Amino acid sequence: MTELSGTIQHYNLWVLLHHVSDIIFNARQTELMRYGIPGMQGEVLFAIKAIGNPATPAQISRLMFRRPHSVSGILIRMEKAGLVKRSKDLEKKNLVRVTLTEKGERAYRQVLKGRAVQRIVSSLSESERRRLRSLLETLRNKGLKELGLDPERVPYPKFV
Amino acid sequence: MTELSGTIQHYNLWVLLHHVSDIIFNARQTELMRYGIPGMQGEVLFAIKAIGNPATPAQISRLMFRRPHSVSGILIRMEKAGLVKRSKDLEKKNLVRVTLTEKGERAYRQVLKGRAVQRIVSSLSESERRRLRSLLETLRNKGLKELGLDPERVPYPKFV
Repeated sequence: MTELSGTIQHYNLWVLLHHVSDIIFNARQTELMRYGIPGMQGEVLFAIKAIGNPATPAQISRLMFRRPHSVSGILIRMEKAGLVKRSKDLEKKNLVRVTLTEKGERAYRQVLKGRAVQRIVSSLSESERRRLRSLLETLRNKGLKELGLDPERVPYPKFV
Repeated sequence: MTELSGTIQHYNLWVLLHHVSDIIFNARQTELMRYGIPGMQGEVLFAIKAIGNPATPAQISRLMFRRPHSVSGILIRMEKAGLVKRSKDLEKKNLVRVTLTEKGERAYRQVLKGRAVQRIVSSLSESERRRLRSLLETLRNKGLKELGLDPERVPYPKFV
């Protein structure tokens, strides 16, 4: 195997990973649209619940591995839609806290009912899912190190 | 296992998949930035080479599983940067063809030299990579069906 063909094989595997992640995201988005919730906003609802109410934009951004300014944009749109409330911390004025509104809580419960991800992931048996998790964890650890981050210190993406 | 905890476990696995895909994308982006190429533009260079010169925006969008208007935006920026040339098809005036410029070809060769993806993916052994590919293919097929698409007819994401 030449060096170049090695690179391309590795690259292809990552592209497949990216592609599958996009496919599931799209299936999820299609489903959320039926509830009138853009896909990314649905993920933010999950993230806030996972972090605990209230969450800071920085925590959400770290958990979702999205840039802070892109998370800020989503939060502004979600506030306009009445799903979250952003308020300044009483002690640290430059810290924003995000809480779900009543409408946000209702939206979260609807999002939870979505079954698209479950239907897709169920195409793997329980042992296949365990194997996939373990392979992904290896890539996660190596990838974070490549980014100069300590895998132990980056929040593990887990909702509940 | 209650129905809800089943949903959350499946959801968590997808979130991990998404997270790993983002981590590798970020590592790649950091590397491409050193060559002055935004990450997405690097992927488009690969896509055009994979499709063959010239490619249409629709082909790029299908291969990358990105919405046509987001691909259009990237192509406009790439044309401004002198990496691609967009031209109208002589026969079908409403069809745009995208070709790499000399500068685009040079950028592609630089992108190919990037080793971040290779270093990360090499954390798996050859048999682990085969296993991962097979698990991802199962998810891909089920996910595309969930989107109402025929997996046989959606281009398999493979560069070279």
